[in-house]
Amino acid sequence: MAKPYKEMNREELLSLKKELEGKFEEAKGKGLKLDMSRGKQSTAQLDMTMSIMNVFDSDSVLKTEDGIDCRNYGLMDGIPEVKKLLGDMMGVPAQNVIVYGNSSLSVMYDAVSHSVTHGVMGSTPWCKLDKVKFLCPVPGYDRHFKITEYFGIEMINIPMTADGPDMDLVEKYVSEDEAVKGIWCVPKYSNPQGISYSDETVRRFANLKPAAKDFRIYWDNAYAVHHLYDDKQDEILEILSECEKAGNPDMVFEFCSTSKVSFAGGGIAGMAASKANLDYIKEGMTVRTIGYDKVNQLRHVRYFKDINGIRAHMKKHAEIIRPKFEAVLQVLDKEIGGLGIGEWNKPVGGYFISFEAMEGCAKAIVAKCKEAGVVMTGAGATFPYGKDPKDSNIRIAPTFPTPEEMAEATDLFVLCVKLVSVNKLLDKNVG
Amino acid sequence: MAKPYKEMNREELLSLKKELEGKFEEAKGKGLKLDMSRGKQSTAQLDMTMSIMNVFDSDSVLKTEDGIDCRNYGLMDGIPEVKKLLGDMMGVPAQNVIVYGNSSLSVMYDAVSHSVTHGVMGSTPWCKLDKVKFLCPVPGYDRHFKITEYFGIEMINIPMTADGPDMDLVEKYVSEDEAVKGIWCVPKYSNPQGISYSDETVRRFANLKPAAKDFRIYWDNAYAVHHLYDDKQDEILEILSECEKAGNPDMVFEFCSTSKVSFAGGGIAGMAASKANLDYIKEGMTVRTIGYDKVNQLRHVRYFKDINGIRAHMKKHAEIIRPKFEAVLQVLDKEIGGLGIGEWNKPVGGYFISFEAMEGCAKAIVAKCKEAGVVMTGAGATFPYGKDPKDSNIRIAPTFPTPEEMAEATDLFVLCVKLVSVNKLLDKNVG
Repeated sequence: MAKPYKEMNREELLSLKKELEGKFEEAKGKGLKLDMSRGKQSTAQLDMTMSIMNVFDSDSVLKTEDGIDCRNYGLMDGIPEVKKLLGDMMGVPAQNVIVYGNSSLSVMYDAVSHSVTHGVMGSTPWCKLDKVKFLCPVPGYDRHFKITEYFGIEMINIPMTADGPDMDLVEKYVSEDEAVKGIWCVPKYSNPQGISYSDETVRRFANLKPAAKDFRIYWDNAYAVHHLYDDKQDEILEILSECEKAGNPDMVFEFCSTSKVSFAGGGIAGMAASKANLDYIKEGMTVRTIGYDKVNQLRHVRYFKDINGIRAHMKKHAEIIRPKFEAVLQVLDKEIGGLGIGEWNKPVGGYFISFEAMEGCAKAIVAKCKEAGVVMTGAGATFPYGKDPKDSNIRIAPTFPTPEEMAEATDLFVLCVKLVSVNKLLDKNVG
Repeated sequence: MAKPYKEMNREELLSLKKELEGKFEEAKGKGLKLDMSRGKQSTAQLDMTMSIMNVFDSDSVLKTEDGIDCRNYGLMDGIPEVKKLLGDMMGVPAQNVIVYGNSSLSVMYDAVSHSVTHGVMGSTPWCKLDKVKFLCPVPGYDRHFKITEYFGIEMINIPMTADGPDMDLVEKYVSEDEAVKGIWCVPKYSNPQGISYSDETVRRFANLKPAAKDFRIYWDNAYAVHHLYDDKQDEILEILSECEKAGNPDMVFEFCSTSKVSFAGGGIAGMAASKANLDYIKEGMTVRTIGYDKVNQLRHVRYFKDINGIRAHMKKHAEIIRPKFEAVLQVLDKEIGGLGIGEWNKPVGGYFISFEAMEGCAKAIVAKCKEAGVVMTGAGATFPYGKDPKDSNIRIAPTFPTPEEMAEATDLFVLCVKLVSVNKLLDKNVG
């Protein structure tokens, strides 16, 4: 049975340090070149989707069910059958969906950018306001935080709990401060913790009483269909209908994409919102574009057919991804369990495992990994401004490497966690 | 030989009016439903490109020449071989090109929107300025004007000449007024007149001495390869290198797309600019997207191979389009030539014919056409704020209808021109 590091005396720690340093030098000698930094599909996943390339040939009729030619201008807000498909992914009616281009990140950026220049449904453009704030559940998705940072929006950390963001804090900020215009949420299999919001959390979101009438929940349902198991699946309450029930029909912008269903960058993205929101958004959209890539929209719906097609496809993804998650979790359990130097979650979906190191250790661990050729997401990236106040959170992205690479990378990771933790404890002892 | 309407006396005009009204009622009875309103490809053109759908199948290797997997994240600014392809379309080196998504209009919108929120290469964001102005050569492209109108940018009309915009005026405004931040240009086969800027015009552009350091020429090279003839082709000077020669390397943003080469909305778009501009743009781009649709980028380069492939392809487009342009021009010549009630250009490329009616007649002509089932671009659309000061310009878009429809539509159009002109002259006579 492993002895918790904190119970070790100085001598034991020094001896352990020596042993770990030896192992680290050995690992470094291997010349690893591995990447656990980003939530990317692996080649095996991408290959698995290649038959989407057979959907069309030169004899295909590229028309929607309504007879609209997808090769020409028109249907700015997307073809009806893809609205249905993305709507089913999010659990909302097709009429509440706009289909965009290849990236939900761009849709979110545009939503914020447009609010800065033109406000939200008639509100004052944010660029005319002295102060705009967003709530940021942490740890969270670095690219969300980059968007708000880029527009000079002040970000406020909201701690995550096992049920989602700390709703007492969210309610307080949203109801008391008119400068609070939004909150970034990944409600299902959250990035990076893999937490799915509880029903109570979703209902409390829907029942918010915002001080700002242009407050919106930015509901990034990025992992709506990204389960790892058949028999263990999280489901969350559908936020649009909950908001409507609560008398807040316009309070949410929901986003989704097929970047981790079909191809990353070669997929399609969508947004769901109330009719009033969509009408306002479409006004701006007519200035921005004549329409998105309907050929690719049609390709997706011909390939997946419907939500059942997507579900079946996601099972195949899960078969490729699941062993990698389990491998990481097994190594963490075996090597770090009981040592008191780290905690982690065991997600049943999504793309990440979130590791909580001892306070003040995350940066050093990531640096140590890099020294031996394993790239992790930069420590701090999961927090606004890249600043993790405790310097403890590390995001592990197990999907991209092969299972063999994953095993090697995780072995190195736990070694670095141990080594940095020992050094930390020794430093403390000195102090 | 036709007698000019202005030389007719009241009696002759009244008799002509009666005859034309009879013909109009007859035409109305046909129940036409034709659209000459937008620059859209015809079905024959779209069909001609369908073999692009055979480029990939499930066994294809979707990698760039450098071995980058186009199915995954990465290469934010486009794959190298497509930079080369779009660069060759614009006549600029690949290193000066960023490849975007499916729409150059979006790229232009984003360029303006980003300047509003973040300025241009470090300048004050336009939303912090009291006044921002754009120069708008008229008649011009309605969707350009909509973008600047949407951001509250004041638009100043600049008359077009046979050589391009009135450069005396352009130089005056640009050098004297720091609020002038841009000018919308379609330098080759301009929309709607089909005018290509003379070498002197391009050189005067390149040698502008802007009062505002964030002044940019918005050079929408939409019809760079869209010739109608093999033996009559306009070429314009390459603006980036001219600007560099003139000591203004950063003064231009150039745009292009394959919307009228491959599929409208299913194509790819690009931007060309100096390295300093591109570096600045890419900083913002990393916040907005992880990358555009590289699968479609690769599809295009595999299909067209290189600029010669595009040129050969555009010849096939020309074979489909040319007869329609010629049919319109022949009818105009035959029916309106010498009557003194309209002028028009004879473009050798692009997508439009611009018709200049008698002053105060354009709206009435378009309304009359609509009454009989022929939709034209709204009168005034070719001017900022939709206001044609002389109410005389009408844009004819001959590409979308079939040749038979085109003939019918043009017959009706000239009939309406005659009828409205007669009425105008009779009104004047009364007054």
